[in-house]
Amino acid sequence: MTRPYNFSAGPAAMPEAVLQQAAAEMLDWHGSGMGVMEMSHRGKEFMSIAAQAEADLRELLAVPENFRILFMQGGGLAENAIVPMNLSRGGVVDFVVTGSWSQKSAKEAGKYATARVVASNEADHHTTLPAPAGWELSGKAQYVHLCSNETIHGVEFHELPDLKALGCDAPLVIDFSSHVASRPVDWSRVGLAFGGAQKNLGPAGLTLVVVREDLLGHALPVCPSAFDYRVVADNASMYNTPPTYSIYMAGLTFQWLQRQTEGGLTGITAMEAKNTAKAALLYDFIDGSSFYVNKVAKECRSRMNVPFFLCDESRNAAFLTGAQAAGLLQLKGHKSVGGMRASLYNAMPLEGVKALVSYMREFERTQA
Amino acid sequence: MTRPYNFSAGPAAMPEAVLQQAAAEMLDWHGSGMGVMEMSHRGKEFMSIAAQAEADLRELLAVPENFRILFMQGGGLAENAIVPMNLSRGGVVDFVVTGSWSQKSAKEAGKYATARVVASNEADHHTTLPAPAGWELSGKAQYVHLCSNETIHGVEFHELPDLKALGCDAPLVIDFSSHVASRPVDWSRVGLAFGGAQKNLGPAGLTLVVVREDLLGHALPVCPSAFDYRVVADNASMYNTPPTYSIYMAGLTFQWLQRQTEGGLTGITAMEAKNTAKAALLYDFIDGSSFYVNKVAKECRSRMNVPFFLCDESRNAAFLTGAQAAGLLQLKGHKSVGGMRASLYNAMPLEGVKALVSYMREFERTQA
Repeated sequence: MTRPYNFSAGPAAMPEAVLQQAAAEMLDWHGSGMGVMEMSHRGKEFMSIAAQAEADLRELLAVPENFRILFMQGGGLAENAIVPMNLSRGGVVDFVVTGSWSQKSAKEAGKYATARVVASNEADHHTTLPAPAGWELSGKAQYVHLCSNETIHGVEFHELPDLKALGCDAPLVIDFSSHVASRPVDWSRVGLAFGGAQKNLGPAGLTLVVVREDLLGHALPVCPSAFDYRVVADNASMYNTPPTYSIYMAGLTFQWLQRQTEGGLTGITAMEAKNTAKAALLYDFIDGSSFYVNKVAKECRSRMNVPFFLCDESRNAAFLTGAQAAGLLQLKGHKSVGGMRASLYNAMPLEGVKALVSYMREFERTQA
Repeated sequence: MTRPYNFSAGPAAMPEAVLQQAAAEMLDWHGSGMGVMEMSHRGKEFMSIAAQAEADLRELLAVPENFRILFMQGGGLAENAIVPMNLSRGGVVDFVVTGSWSQKSAKEAGKYATARVVASNEADHHTTLPAPAGWELSGKAQYVHLCSNETIHGVEFHELPDLKALGCDAPLVIDFSSHVASRPVDWSRVGLAFGGAQKNLGPAGLTLVVVREDLLGHALPVCPSAFDYRVVADNASMYNTPPTYSIYMAGLTFQWLQRQTEGGLTGITAMEAKNTAKAALLYDFIDGSSFYVNKVAKECRSRMNVPFFLCDESRNAAFLTGAQAAGLLQLKGHKSVGGMRASLYNAMPLEGVKALVSYMREFERTQA
């Protein structure tokens, strides 16, 4: 069976091998007589699944020992409140606004802290990234927040800022929801990273938090116990019942990532090479066309989310109908931006991007 | 294939038919070319799944029109904070403490409100339920909270209190995590009910909230937007990306519940009849034995969670080893209570309880 190619921005396509394994193990995991959904989170079976998932992720992303890996609930949107409840100490927080997600984060943080926007690409309609040298950092912020890949606007930080070099001692918080595990992370520049699982890791409902040990233990009194990082870390993410099946699915995805190879590369660097090639194929085609356009500055284009437009937008509906018929799903752009969006997460094979480009070329030809 | 019987207190056994359907649809839901995990929550496919799940639950539990059904994240433990953030208005809240869960709820609410314990069964080691006539209600509470089934201590309210008849106008909040959908709910006595899904509804990571419309819109300023019931309700549970796969699994479970029949009964009343018969079988056996004991007062014994002890506790390990070998899983009691616990949620067939009783009888015989 050939499955259609699914370009959803999230929840998004999952690796076929992962779905097949999950289906095969649904009623009986490794001869335990239980499906994973049916296991007590305190039993030895699920404890081993969770421990393996954490160890595999730590190895994949080269997470240093002084960082804790937390499996939580609530999604990136809840983290917009949970991060300031844990890290702001009610003080000042600096936000770099580069699109819808960082905007939402700044707004929500205002409930718990003094949220300052220290840089913004709003004047450019979120198609650029403000250079760190120009950020008006507070100097007294509890942390600096940025969204390292904006799912809706399609801009991505290809290098994280070195805050220390900018004279800023505050930890950097990144929302890496929509490009987590698509490339390595420079942990020397990061204090905390969070992300919803539903783009690159697994099912919606699981939230990943990777946090430097010294940032734990400063939650505001109003922080719910279930979302206090110190409490979650001390209980190995089992203070409340975790989203067990989603952790299992993420674990299978981590194993799939470990198996990736490309040239002489393996794991995340292999995945990164594939993602770079996929994105280049689509961007190069769009840039070479006068029928389609991507408005994002080249140096900050996202490898994961490619928003693009038909120069003649009256053909949008026909484009989408034809795409669906060609087995190319969920290409409609976000309502706030319009046009189209192709999300090229890890699970999207190069063949899917080739099929998309091929369809786009043919659509242009028949409409000309 | 005969699967073992799984008595886990949660995450717990799921109906085999539900797991089979989920496995069959894992890579392709209804010819859409996508698995349910891979669908945008804003797409027509998932929107239809979520709407159907909500409609089926409303019909099953006879939820009145002036109640909203919310699918959230965080589990019952997060709701211990989310409920007072939404309903307490920072005032007084009355708690009926009947076991570990209501105790935890009262403690967490103290972060946001003045939490008063108005009745407690602590002196009886949580083996009784305090009669409503004796509750020392504040008269000015924003709500009265109780846990209608205590998973750990095995006590269950077989009738919800009529607060109005007690001269109290405050809404009743019930934590029905561990017996939701095992019996009908008298909504005329309830203002809000919440429950984690992982006992009777579906996978861990989904939280059900059923709330009377007039209780929305009073969240404290510190309540995260993602957990503000008004925001969640106004966005049909899609303000943040919901745990889509868990909603789908719960939806399949609702359909399985709708198909239940017993005598002339269907749906929840059929399920209740089955649950009553299952619990009676086990309690009657224990009460007739001098080898096993259940310490809970008969009139408030839970149909869902049956904690019991071997009179000679030195035989516990042998009991559990033999049970595992006989295909009777996860019978170990909660660490705070000790002994054994058999959870008889909806998905446990009568045959499973018969097999347990049969094993218990045989174990007693061989040990005598």
